[in-house]
Order: sequence, then structure tokens, then C-alpha cells
Amino acid sequence: MRWFLFGSLFFIFTGSAYAQSDSVTLRKIADEIFRHSNAYGNLTQLTKHIGPRLSGSPQTYAAEKWGLDVLKQAGAEKVYLQKAVIPHWVRDGKDEAALVTGKNRQSLAVIALGNSVSTPVKGITAPMILIRDFDELEKRKAEIKGKIVFYNHPFNVDFVWVFNAYAEAVPYRVFGASRAAKYGALGVVVRSMSSSTDNFPHTGAMIYNDSFPKIPALAIGLQDADKLAAAAASQKDLRLFISTRAHALPDTIGYNVIGEWAGSEFPDQFITVGGHLDSWDPAEGASDDGTGCVQSVEVLRTLKATGYKPRHTLRVVLFTDEENGGRGAKAYASEARRAGEKHIFALESDGGGFTPRGFSFHGSSNELAVIQKFLPLLKPYGVYEFTASGAGADVETLHDSTGVLAAELIPDSQRYFDYHHAGNDVLEKVNKRELELGAINMAALIFLIDKHGL
Amino acid sequence: MRWFLFGSLFFIFTGSAYAQSDSVTLRKIADEIFRHSNAYGNLTQLTKHIGPRLSGSPQTYAAEKWGLDVLKQAGAEKVYLQKAVIPHWVRDGKDEAALVTGKNRQSLAVIALGNSVSTPVKGITAPMILIRDFDELEKRKAEIKGKIVFYNHPFNVDFVWVFNAYAEAVPYRVFGASRAAKYGALGVVVRSMSSSTDNFPHTGAMIYNDSFPKIPALAIGLQDADKLAAAAASQKDLRLFISTRAHALPDTIGYNVIGEWAGSEFPDQFITVGGHLDSWDPAEGASDDGTGCVQSVEVLRTLKATGYKPRHTLRVVLFTDEENGGRGAKAYASEARRAGEKHIFALESDGGGFTPRGFSFHGSSNELAVIQKFLPLLKPYGVYEFTASGAGADVETLHDSTGVLAAELIPDSQRYFDYHHAGNDVLEKVNKRELELGAINMAALIFLIDKHGL
Repeated sequence: MRWFLFGSLFFIFTGSAYAQSDSVTLRKIADEIFRHSNAYGNLTQLTKHIGPRLSGSPQTYAAEKWGLDVLKQAGAEKVYLQKAVIPHWVRDGKDEAALVTGKNRQSLAVIALGNSVSTPVKGITAPMILIRDFDELEKRKAEIKGKIVFYNHPFNVDFVWVFNAYAEAVPYRVFGASRAAKYGALGVVVRSMSSSTDNFPHTGAMIYNDSFPKIPALAIGLQDADKLAAAAASQKDLRLFISTRAHALPDTIGYNVIGEWAGSEFPDQFITVGGHLDSWDPAEGASDDGTGCVQSVEVLRTLKATGYKPRHTLRVVLFTDEENGGRGAKAYASEARRAGEKHIFALESDGGGFTPRGFSFHGSSNELAVIQKFLPLLKPYGVYEFTASGAGADVETLHDSTGVLAAELIPDSQRYFDYHHAGNDVLEKVNKRELELGAINMAALIFLIDKHGL
Repeated sequence: MRWFLFGSLFFIFTGSAYAQSDSVTLRKIADEIFRHSNAYGNLTQLTKHIGPRLSGSPQTYAAEKWGLDVLKQAGAEKVYLQKAVIPHWVRDGKDEAALVTGKNRQSLAVIALGNSVSTPVKGITAPMILIRDFDELEKRKAEIKGKIVFYNHPFNVDFVWVFNAYAEAVPYRVFGASRAAKYGALGVVVRSMSSSTDNFPHTGAMIYNDSFPKIPALAIGLQDADKLAAAAASQKDLRLFISTRAHALPDTIGYNVIGEWAGSEFPDQFITVGGHLDSWDPAEGASDDGTGCVQSVEVLRTLKATGYKPRHTLRVVLFTDEENGGRGAKAYASEARRAGEKHIFALESDGGGFTPRGFSFHGSSNELAVIQKFLPLLKPYGVYEFTASGAGADVETLHDSTGVLAAELIPDSQRYFDYHHAGNDVLEKVNKRELELGAINMAALIFLIDKHGL
């Protein structure tokens, strides 16, 4: 685009139900974040100096220390750890492999799914059967025994909201192994839950059904999935070799990292904002969910820096173990219930640090009616839509426990599954300004709810 | 984010003024593009096989041939070239350099601005003066003579709509050299028009005022601009060395590449959709404006593939020389006027292939009132906003000539200036789905205007 601009102002909105002074505060929040944000710097530390943060890994504990530090720096008055019992699954990546054997030998990009058992040390070599969906699995159940099942279920590109494609595909990752083991499969290879143009395999949680043998489960990159499908079409007796070293250790201890800023009027009423500190292990957990963590910390820092005094107590929570069981969310929700805490709002960011488009809520119709009036104030910052489509996993757990109005930032979804649980979920895929724009809208929404109540 | 989703449907809209059948057609368009788009494949060819396409460069002509080919493949019935006289500025990049001389010697990432003259072969070494804006230049005009001016005007991060920051900063690139030459400067170095986190220098057009000596002009990367500013603050006698080999050749011939599909009802009335085929030269011209070209071609391919018969003649125009004078747009507009063509709509995509947010228009209030009714139909595809803020440079030229309703796709602006005219404007910065979502909205808008008229 050339230097010549016709007209300069976009995204002018009018018609807010709230005072001019609110829009002035929102502009202050935006200026503070665009000019002085620590979000991208904090994310750089978390991704480049700590790295992947699989539940129970040494980096889990380094990340907790990092969380305490950044919350103190952001101005939290009280910073503490909240204990949770978390799973401890360990991958030894160096023996992860899959190969088409025989004369058309080819190596395939794979990664074991989270919680997968190991293969024997010499791997498993067996005939492969390509299965597109569970219907086909059921129809062909007599052919499964002694084979490696390749679930080549496509990621449906038709959905504009890409999470819908994920929701449709993810049962193959989560339940595919046990459903195939039921019919005697020796292992499964699952097409990655993505429509990216690269070949990174995408890991993520899978769950065994204890009624059936536990068989190893791997994800395969999309280019290699297509090659494997082509090879299977042209060679009926195709045999696959798979190998992975992975095993579950006994549960261990992890911590939610919490920073508080006491409310001036209702110190015993809580607004929670958070992301999850754990991640899958192939990369840096940048978009999932380093971005949500640093945005949440930034909300506190920014409201403090702009001189705002919150009426309710603001709690930033960096949840442990969202990825592999949600044990951190359960610990937080059960403590809230045990202590009889009153929670008025809980916001999560766990859809990546991409340009924001909206917020999604889970609350009563009265709450949603109040919230709706704030939307015009956020439109100048790119938030166009409030929906009642539920909130993120961590704050939904709090909603279940306390009835709190729960919400999630809705960033643009087009890029999220290119990086999700894959080797390219790195800092370089996060845009500083997009990250900051998300934090601006989060801080703005929390300011409005804190000030006006529900 | 975990696999668990609460509710699945976002972005459901109702209340369209148009028939259910229109939304069915839009869904067909989306399915066709998400499933079968050539946009990303065509962009791969243009960026990786042809590369940078500076006006008059050999790649200009390779790109014209590519354009003819992809328009034929897309189903254009008539494909032709339209002549334009274009500038021919040549850079010999290997001697481009800038250095802080003396004991604190450091090399700086620079690139000559488009149309800059060369330095002498041995370069220019002179005292440097840091100037933040033209006001300061005027105040310190007595200090300029015999120096190299470093315009360190910051890119204002406060604007949510990043093009506003560009509009504010770009006069330093375009006019800075001659304004400094007026007071005897020997050369200028301009802070790149970006707020990215990297150190790529960003080139772009500059214009000499013939009343003053022509002095060489370079852009400097942001990290090095900050280093240079720090060095200047600590060392009053800082001297800079600059070198560049660049020169203007006589004007040459370039071509707009045009593909037509005749209208069934009004073959003599035209709808234009386009992007510009030329680019700056440090990288591949992916986001500026390979994306707009392939999206425009995709509009034709898609409407054809879905079985639509346009009432008006659809013209895809891949404009030549948008970057360095807009000569292609002038040739197209003047031919339209000469031939007395009736143009009813002209749409451009030149803001990058990022996720779409809206369209901006330049037209009569009657036209805008008709258009406004289409907005609800586009909302499921991420277009939330129509503004009357003008259109892109190429179609504005046609508006000036014919009064046509002109429009531009408005993608999210956060990332555009990270890559704009810089060495990282490459295919890898374009997301396939975001590119396709832009094309979907472009095809949808053209379908609606073609079908319902204005």
C-alpha cells in the first residue's frame, strides 16, 4: 500500500450507554499498554528463558517462580502459590518415530500424544489400516486386530470459527486409541488437528478407557498424513513402524500462581483474570497459553499504572495444568467454594494472543444485559461482538463452583490451530500489537465491570 | 486451549435485508474458497518463483506473464495487457551501508529509499544531526549545512488503526530529503515507518523537490535507529558514513494485466476488482500486494466455480506501478474515461492478506445506503464494519475519473507495517485462511452488488 491515505479515521462509534469519562479511561488504558506494556517482554522471558511447561516438568517450577516475580513487578499486593495435585507424564522424545517400512520406506513427522504409553523398545511394526471416522471404524471392526490404525479424519476447513473444526476432530485424538484397542489395534496414528500448510505434528491430551489395552498413540503432521494416505491407497499391504518412549509417573504437586490487589469498597468480592501457565512440550507454549498469562498480568499492571482504584479485589491467576486435566482450575474453584468467597466476574484468555474480535460469556440473562451495554465502548479497540457461548475451561470450572459470570477473550481464530500444541508455538508467531490489543480489551472490560458492577 | 468447548456457534447474525438465498450463495462462495482456493498457491508462485517486482525490473515482466496465466486458469474469457509508462529506478544493493565512524564504530541496517540518488562511490562521511520532526528542522536550520540528517520521528503506537501512524510518519520518508537539502544537508537517514520488534529497514517512495540539491536518502531499522539515537545522545561529534548505489533510468513500459468475464445483462457496465502487481524490492511483495492480486483473481475463479452468471462485466485488474507513481491506475482510469465506460463498482485489496474486518467506501450517500444493507450477510465471515473512509489508491483514481463507487477491503492492520516494504514481506507472513477469508468477503460483496445493483 502506498503512502497516500484517503481519510484517516476508521472505527468511530457512538451510542455508548456509559459516560464519556469511561471512554477517556479506556483511552488511558490503551495508551498505557501500547506505550509501556510489559506483556511482550514477559512473554519473551517465559518462552525463551523457560520454554515448554508440561505439567510436572522442571520448567513448571521455573514458570511458577517467574509468575511470582512478574506479578510482584506488576504491583500485586499479595502474591502466593495455591497447591494442586497434577499429573506427571514424561516424554523421551528422541525415540519418537514412525516409518513406512519395506521398499517404499519413508520417515514420517510424528509426536506422541499426551498420556500415551510407550511402545516396546524395538517399536511396533504392523500392517496399517486407514480409518476416516468412528463410523468406518465400527463398520470395519473385524479388520482392526493386530494393526496400527491411522485416523485420517480431516480438519473441516469450512468453519469460519476454527474451534468448531477442532471440536469435531478432537475425539479422534482423545478417544481414538481406546476405541481402536477395543478391536485389537496395536497402536494409533492420528492426523493432526490443524489445517496449516506445514508438517508439524500436533500433540495434546488423550484419555485411555481402562476397559481396553493401553496402546501407544501418535499424531502425524499434515503433509505426511497426506503422503501416508496416498501410500495406503497405492499399496494394500502397507506396514508401519512406530516407536515412542513415554510414561506416566505418580501424580506430583504443582501450583496456581496468584496475585491480588485489594478492592477499596468490596475487598471480599473477587474479580479473577487469568490464563494457564502450563503448556504442551514440543515448543514454547507461546500462544497456548503464554499470551493469556502475560495479558492477565498486564491487566493488573495497567489498571495500577493508570491510577485506578478497584472497588473489588482483583486476582490474577496463572493456572497450573489446564492442558492435562484442569487440576489447577479445580483447586482454585474448590478453595473458592470452601472459603465461601463471593466472585462477581472471571475472565480468561486462552485462545491465543491474536487480534481480538469479541468476548464470550457464561452468565445469567441479567448479567448479559448489563454487559451488553459496554460493547460500544470496546468497539474502537476492535471488539465487535459479545456472545453467550461459554467461557474458557479454567473459569468455567469456577462458574460451576460459584455461579460467577465467566468470560473468555475471543481473538481471531484463523491462526490458532497452525501452532496449537506443535513445534511452532513460539514467540515469533505472536504479534506484539495484537497481544497488547487483547490486553487492552481485557483491562477495559474488567474496569467497566468493576466500576459499574453487574 | 484444551479440547473441551462450551457451546460451539459464534458469530451468528440475523436481520439481513436480503433473501435467504443470498446467504446460501455466500456460504457456497465460502465453501468453494476454503476447499478449493488457488489464492495461496498462486501467491506461492508469485513470491517464491518471481519475487520482488519493482517497476521496470525484469520481474515486472515475469509477473505480467504470471498474471495472464492465472487469469486464464481462473476462467477469464478475455485476458489482455494495458500499457502504461512507468518509472525505472534501479538499486544496486551491495554497496548500501551506513556506519557510525570513529572509536564507537558500528554498522547499521539501512536500505535506500525508492528514487534516491546515489552517494559518490566512496560514500559520504559527515557529522550527523538527529531531528525528531520538521518543526525541529526549521528551528535548527542553521545547524544542518554539511551534515547528514537522521530523522528519528517515532511511529505513533497509540493508533489502533495503524495506518494513521503511517500517515503521520510518512512525510519524513517522502519529503525529508529535500527539506533537509534546502538547508544544506548532504544526506538523510529516516527511521523506518513501523513499530515492529525487529531491525528490518523499510523502503518506499520518496520525492525530490527540484528546487534543491538531490541528496541520498536511506531508511534505518528500528533497533539500529534506537542505537543511533543513544549514540548521538552520548557523543556530540558523532559522524556517519553512508553509501548507496541507486539511479533512475528513463521511463519504461509496464502493463496492467486484465481479465474479463462478460456480464449477461449489462456487458457494457463494469465491476473492477484488483490489487497491484508491482512491489518494493527488498523481499517478495507478499503482503504488499501479492495478496490483493491473488484475492482478486480468486473472486473471478470462485464466482465462476459456483455457477454464478454475473449481470455486469467483471474485470480483474492487476495494476502496474502502484508503489512508485500509480501510473497503472492512471492508465486504467484514463482509458475508462476515453472509452466512455460505465463503471458501477471498483474494489481493491491493498492492506495485506490479514483477517478481514470491514470494507471502506468512497461513494454517494445513496450508494452507501444500499451497501449498508449487505453488511449483516458478511458478518458470519468476519466483516463487521462498513465505513465511508475512502478506498485504495488504484480504485480512487478510477473514482476520480468516472465517479464509480470505490472500495477497499479493510483487513486487521496490526501486522501490516511489520512487513511493509521490508525484507520480511514474504509468503511465510501470510496465513492461508486469513487470505482466503478476505477473498470470500470480496467475492461476496461483488456478488451482492452485481446481483442487486446500486
